[in-house]
Parts: sequence; structure tokens; C-alpha cells
Amino acid sequence: MSSNEGRAERGGRRGRRRRGETTGASAPRTPAYLRRAVPPYELLGEEGLRRIEDQADWLLTEIGVEFRDDPPSLATWKDAGADVRGERVRFEPGMCREIIQRSAPKSFTQIARNPERSVAIGGDSLVFTPPYGAPFVRGLDFERRYSTLQDFNNLVKLSQATPSLHHSGGTICEPTDIPVSKRHLDMTYGHIRYSDKAFMGGVISGSQAEDCIRMTELVFGREALDESCCILGMINPTSPLVYDGAALEALRVYAARGQGTIIAPFIIAGASGPVTPAGMVAQLFAEAMAGMALAQLVRPGAPMIFGINSMGLNMRSGAPIRFDESWKCLLAAGQLARRLGVPYRGGGASTTAKLPDAHAGMEAALYLNYSVLSGVNFLIHATGALELGLCISYEKYVLDCEMLGALGRMIEGIDVSEDAFASEAYREVGPGGNFLATPHTMARYRDAFFDSDLFDSRSFEQWRDDGGLDAARRANAALEAMLGDYEAPPIDPAIDEALLDFTARRKSELPDSFA
Amino acid sequence: MSSNEGRAERGGRRGRRRRGETTGASAPRTPAYLRRAVPPYELLGEEGLRRIEDQADWLLTEIGVEFRDDPPSLATWKDAGADVRGERVRFEPGMCREIIQRSAPKSFTQIARNPERSVAIGGDSLVFTPPYGAPFVRGLDFERRYSTLQDFNNLVKLSQATPSLHHSGGTICEPTDIPVSKRHLDMTYGHIRYSDKAFMGGVISGSQAEDCIRMTELVFGREALDESCCILGMINPTSPLVYDGAALEALRVYAARGQGTIIAPFIIAGASGPVTPAGMVAQLFAEAMAGMALAQLVRPGAPMIFGINSMGLNMRSGAPIRFDESWKCLLAAGQLARRLGVPYRGGGASTTAKLPDAHAGMEAALYLNYSVLSGVNFLIHATGALELGLCISYEKYVLDCEMLGALGRMIEGIDVSEDAFASEAYREVGPGGNFLATPHTMARYRDAFFDSDLFDSRSFEQWRDDGGLDAARRANAALEAMLGDYEAPPIDPAIDEALLDFTARRKSELPDSFA
Repeated sequence: MSSNEGRAERGGRRGRRRRGETTGASAPRTPAYLRRAVPPYELLGEEGLRRIEDQADWLLTEIGVEFRDDPPSLATWKDAGADVRGERVRFEPGMCREIIQRSAPKSFTQIARNPERSVAIGGDSLVFTPPYGAPFVRGLDFERRYSTLQDFNNLVKLSQATPSLHHSGGTICEPTDIPVSKRHLDMTYGHIRYSDKAFMGGVISGSQAEDCIRMTELVFGREALDESCCILGMINPTSPLVYDGAALEALRVYAARGQGTIIAPFIIAGASGPVTPAGMVAQLFAEAMAGMALAQLVRPGAPMIFGINSMGLNMRSGAPIRFDESWKCLLAAGQLARRLGVPYRGGGASTTAKLPDAHAGMEAALYLNYSVLSGVNFLIHATGALELGLCISYEKYVLDCEMLGALGRMIEGIDVSEDAFASEAYREVGPGGNFLATPHTMARYRDAFFDSDLFDSRSFEQWRDDGGLDAARRANAALEAMLGDYEAPPIDPAIDEALLDFTARRKSELPDSFA
Repeated sequence: MSSNEGRAERGGRRGRRRRGETTGASAPRTPAYLRRAVPPYELLGEEGLRRIEDQADWLLTEIGVEFRDDPPSLATWKDAGADVRGERVRFEPGMCREIIQRSAPKSFTQIARNPERSVAIGGDSLVFTPPYGAPFVRGLDFERRYSTLQDFNNLVKLSQATPSLHHSGGTICEPTDIPVSKRHLDMTYGHIRYSDKAFMGGVISGSQAEDCIRMTELVFGREALDESCCILGMINPTSPLVYDGAALEALRVYAARGQGTIIAPFIIAGASGPVTPAGMVAQLFAEAMAGMALAQLVRPGAPMIFGINSMGLNMRSGAPIRFDESWKCLLAAGQLARRLGVPYRGGGASTTAKLPDAHAGMEAALYLNYSVLSGVNFLIHATGALELGLCISYEKYVLDCEMLGALGRMIEGIDVSEDAFASEAYREVGPGGNFLATPHTMARYRDAFFDSDLFDSRSFEQWRDDGGLDAARRANAALEAMLGDYEAPPIDPAIDEALLDFTARRKSELPDSFA
């Protein structure tokens, strides 16, 4: 993979600083994103990885990918020398990989409205990001209902408030009270107004993507978007091996403007792909490589992230189910991403649970943990998801944040410096002694533990005397405080007005469509 | 570590079979233990591991270990050439390691009453084992109370019934209604009578250990214990750097009879050891090496397991707390175990939660997952623990079993054979098709998913119409069925009578002590 080494990183501290100074945002109290000091978990060896890569090449060469209802994409492929017959495109072995490795950045920076919150994506960086696309929420009354714009804005505020999330996300939940045709405007406004972290834009059509980019320009300035990634769009192919017209339009709009895309196929095992993890990963990789190569042809150097998602299928009921093999897919795909040399998105705090209960906690923790160990750079669905993402629990949202905090400690690794061994303390304490009062302990105990209020670690008696609440009830109380204490980050009133004007104008132009 | 290569494995299929044929037990439906097909997670590199090993040597050489109230241990050390002053023993650098590597088995088999349930311990094997030592339970009525012998026997029955646990454990919970001086008799009888899986014996004193070994001989025959490991005892030093007399007595009794010991130091960060994970691991390793070397001096080749445990400390309240750095200790200690060439015990489904709620699920899942990834061979506390082990929740017990099942799938790794790639199915399905009806899917879907009833993966509507129960309530219902359906494994009536006679006689001889 030495051909990656020379590839440039887009955006940089200098660009960020200049950009940020124009927005007047305040400094954050916590790191903008994490850096992994521990190695990723390498599940597969060279032989297994090569077989998967070979199968991905075989799929691209022998089966091919359909690019539907988007003649410009087909024209691009023809120009690039691919084998285009109707909407089916086939590629010489290695062609997509070569296009990607020629120009795709190994890592890039997404600029945030608050420049101190800009995030590096790729390499050893790790960005925790809210969930995406839930039509339901369980609100503070624990009742399940369709989500609204108010829920969306509440969740943006929670993401802004918690140090555990580094990004404001995209369609965190669907604002189902707003027409589908106009939601992207309210969501983009919500991200910009209620958060100063980086965010994602709409992808349902090319014109949606253009609206979101236009609003981003109003905040960052047109010039900023010429130079840097200021918005990300998530592009999902329609597995198996199809990109539909709307996704292709959005892909082309983001890439042409030099903005970021997450090319993220999503397979339901045994339905939109084979039921075997090796087969699934090969297909996910093939699909993503085709989309990533297209983005690089549209604009060489356009920032991109290789993403995957997978679920199981209950063959009796037809319902998507948790798929433990997804852990393996996550880990293997992370290895492929590193070999290809592109940033990687996968995983989340996923669960099939309907309530923020023990089942939710166990599944979410395992999946989240394998996500982190996969070497993921951009972790969507890091918080709150129930029902495999159909529903967001406010309570699970903040409980998952505690896990993110703990995992953030994990990836710091172990300090093996001389100081860490406390040799002097042993001379003081000796066998049978107590380290509590030693200078070594006293100097370190404040930072030695990850302090979590929600994961109540007090004694049974203290917990009982304090009400004996389960985790969901404790989270509920914390949420009321978080939302009550929330303060919107400052914004230039002229920018705010321009955003509101743009939104109003576009809403007057667009039809009211709910489908 | 090439010096390990020549070391023998104790016990074997031939020995197991012969042993088993005398007990008349029925064949199990599931594997007796797991084999890990995926690599352990290597957190530290060579440099970090070497620094920790060097610090362990420094502790053993410069600070030393106290062997209290047990002159035979001191005599053994003198004979071996250690520097013994009073009860303090110091070791030349590398001395303990050399003693261990000279004779300790890299892996061994613990024989179960049902020979098909004998477990291999070491190498790539993985044995999931119940919790250990809880004085409280949350019973089927969800109320927290002192545990009793009935709870103990119930938990033995659950461990026997679930395929997720491979071992019956030891002091799963304390039978607080029985005098401390006599509990070991009832617990050992319970393990033997209500389970046909392997088990652990008492360690509070040498005579307790002798009673448990005697009962084991009644089941397996004296000759079996001459040849094979039929019982395990868990030996805890008193950190920092002390072994007390009772632990040493028990260690010597088990080792002298050729039975297994788990040498398992337990550090509370900042109290019985330093607050830094590198320092903790070095101390845990030093303490364990001293105990393991002693066991090998008592009887070269005695089966042994290197174990660790660690917790944090709330410096304000003095309560033990969850310690995320324990994950790192677990992973690093696993690496040290492999380098030393001994079986490894660590981790569990540990949590500070007081209820089987989301908090319990998240913490337990993370800790359990790092346990599995550490390369652990013998995983105690795999199920049920709340309050860092002070309390066992029946409901969490069975919920944790679901996680164990899922993790068992994880460690099978990924099949990358030609078949797994489903190439033929792609020719049938093509872009945009569905794999559901392909022969590739049809031949595999039954085994493709880990089927979990308790982790209800049905749709929201199905779950709601079925009562909308949270995981703990679903687990409660499952428990009643498991305990209702439980059938004791067969036992030779003569053996049962001999066990009851022995127990009655020893109870009449022992005082009634509750402290």
C-alpha cells in the first residue's frame, strides 16, 4: 500500500483557524476527536484478506455494478475505460482500486463552525457521531412515537452538550412533522444553529444536496468549500451491486464541490447479499469501491469515507435481526480500509432491543466495542439506537455516551514509562501495605478513573438510599438537566438571518411531499 | 518462549474416556468447551511487555514476597535457593519464571464426572465458568437478600442446564445459611450431585481443601486423581506481595495431590497496588509467579492457571468501583501468560450495577468482551454478577449466557473458503436481486445466525403484542422454565451414598462457625 503514502491530507489547522475566526464560536473544553493509541484488532490474516479482495475484484469484473437512472455516471465510466453495457458497468480487475489510490485522501479534516471542533477523519483518528435516520423516538416520557423536528433539535442539542460525541451527525431522527421534500432545510439549519460541531447534509436527491451545500456556504463562505471539507453526505448504494439515480446525483454533487461523501453499502444477510460474512464483506467492499472510484473520477482528491453496515434477517418473520457475524464484517472491512488507504466508517451502538434495558446494553456494548477495535474513523450510530436504528431512546442516548467515554479511555493504551511502575511506592509500602497515601497514588487518583455519574458505582446502600433507580431512570433525570442547561453556541446574526431567508425561500419553492 | 514447547499436557482423551465410563453419565448435546479460532487482541508491543516483565522481576528481587504463617513454604523456598529472611522471600531475577517454565503444563484437562464434559484449559481453549463468592442474590422475586444453599444449588442447576457455561464453578454464591466451617462440604456435594460438569473446591484452609479432594476421590477414584486434574482450587494472595497461611496451606494441598490451582492475585487500584495499569499488571504478574513457582516446587508438573483480577476505588467513599483500566490489565496479562506459557484466567461479566439494567448490560458486555479477546482460557464470573460480584442476579445470569453464546460465535472467525463467497449465487441473482431463495442461502440460513430467545429480535409490534416485557422480565420467565425443566444428571447410588456419609461425618466433626 505504499502508493498511499504520498497522498495529501485535505484541510489543516491553518485553514481551520482562519475559517473559525469568522464564526465567533467559543472554545470547547474537551478534545474535538480522539486519537487511537492502541492497535486495531486484526481478525484476518493476509490470506483471508487477499481472498476477500480477490472476490471483490471478481464481482466488479464478472458481475459488475448497475448505475441506474443517471446518464452522467455512465458517461464518466465510459470515459474512464470501463465496460459499460446499458446501465451495467464492469471493471478490469484492480481498476477501481487504482482510481481510488491515485487520488483519494488517506485522511482529511472536516471543518466545524467552531474551528476547535473540526475533526480529522482517517489514520488513527476516531470521531463519534449520533445515530442516523430513525423514524421513531422514545421520549422523556418513555413512550414510543414518531419523531418530530423538536426531537431532532433536542438530539442536536444533546450532541452539542456531550463531550462524548464529536460531530452533530446528519438525519439523526426523521422530523416526520415536516414534508420529506423540505426536511433537509430544517435539519441543516438545526445542525448549524444548535451546534457548533461538524455535520452532514441531505442526500435524497441532487437538489437536496445542493441546498445543504448552499447553506454551508452561507456559514463558512464559498471559498472555504473550495479548499476544505465543510459538509459530509452519506451515499448508500442499493445492494446488491446497484446505485440508484438519486444516490448518484447526491454523490456527484458532493464530490464535484469537493465535499465529503461516505460511500456506505448496507447488506441484509441472506437477502441483499449472501448469508456468509466473507461473502458479505467482499460485496460491501466491491460496492463501495465502485462508488468511491466514481467520486474520484468526478473530482480527484474529493474526501471520502468507506462505510459499511450489515444486519441479519429472521427468515421466518422477514424482520431484520441482530447479526453477530456483523462484528466480523466490521473488523474485516476495517482491515480492507487500511489496506486500501481510505478512512473507514462502520458499527455503532446497535441493538434489536425495544427498551433501554439489559438487552440493549449488552448488544450495544458489544457492537460498539467491535466498532472501536475495527479501527473505525467515523462512527455513526454511536448513541441511542434501539430496534436496529428504527427508534432512538433519549435515555439510551446518554447511557451510550458513558460507554463512549469509557472506550475513549481504553484507546489511550497503557503508559509503560518508568513513572507508571511506582517503584518508589513499593519501597514505602512493602508487602501487605496500602498505596492509598503514597505520593504516587495521590498524584494520580483524580485522573486514574473514568468518572461516570450514570454508571453509578457507589455501594448498594448509597444507591438504594438515593432512590434505587435503574439506569434508564437515572438517565432520564440527567437528560432533563442536560436539556435544561443547554446553551446555544453563538452565531453571527447576519449568518443566521441569511440561513433563515434561504430556508424560507426554498420552502416556498418546494412542494409539500410526505413520501 | 521456546522452552515451553517441550512441556507435556496433562490428562487426555484416553484418560477422560476411561474415567467417564465409570460414572454412567449421559452425553451432552453441545461442545464441552470452546476453541478460539481468532487471534487474541495484542494490546502491548514487545517493548511494553518487556518493561512489565522487568518490573515484575524487580519486585520479586528487590521487594520480595511475604509467605506468612506457613513454615513449610519458607522451607521449600530455602531449599530452592531463594533469599529467605523471616517471612520475606526474595528471588534472583528470572528465578520464578525458570521454575515455572521447567515443569508447569502449558495446558491440561480437567476431568468432569461426565467425561464428555471434561474441559481443556490452556492454548486456544476457552472455558466459561459461573461467578464466585457472592454473599447476596437477587432472586426470582427481584429482591436482594443473603444467598443460601438453595440459591447455590439452583445456580449449579442453571449452569448444568445452559450450554453457555462449560464448568460448574466453585463458591458460586455463599450459602450463608450454612456455617462457614461446613459450607465446602455442601457446595462440593451440590456440584457433584446437580451437575456433571467439572468443578472447583474449597480453599479457606488446608483441611477444607483436603475434604474437597476426598469427596472428589469418592467420585472419580483415588487413582484418577493420581493421573489427572479432577478438581481446581482458587488461591488468592493478599496483595500487595503477601500470601497468608490459609492460602498457602490450600495451595500446597491441591498441588501436592496433583490437582489444579488458579493463582489469582486481586488488586484494588490505588490501595493494594498502584493506581497505574502498568504497575498493577507488573505486581499481579510478580505475585502470581511467586505462587505458581511454589506450586511447581511442591509438585513439578502440577496443573496451574495464572489468574488476575482488578478493581478501582472510589477515593471519596472508599467503595470499590468499576475500573476501565482493568480492561487493559486483562489484555496485558493475557499477553504475559502466553509469553510465560501458562493457562490464563481473567475477566468476567463484571459491573457495578445494582439491577440487571442497561448499565449492567453495558459494563458486563465490555468487560466480558475484553476478557474473551485477552486470550483467556478459564473465564470465571462469566454470568450473573452485579455490584462487582457482591450480588448475583438470577436474571442477569441467563442474560449473560446469551452474550456468551454470541461471543462463542465470534471466536469461530470467518470462513474464507471458496464456498463462503457465493459466486454462483451472484450469477443467479445479479445486481438488484434477492439472495433469499438461492441455494447458497437456503443451505446456510439455519446456522447463519446465533439464535437468542432472550435477546428478542422480533419487530416492535410482535414484541409489544407479546407483552412488551423488558429483558429482565423475559429472563425471569425463562428461569422458571429452566429450573422447572431441570433434570439431575445420573449418579451411581453407591457414590452418592458415600458422599452423603462423608459429608455427614465431617459435619459432625467440625465446629459450627459462621465467621
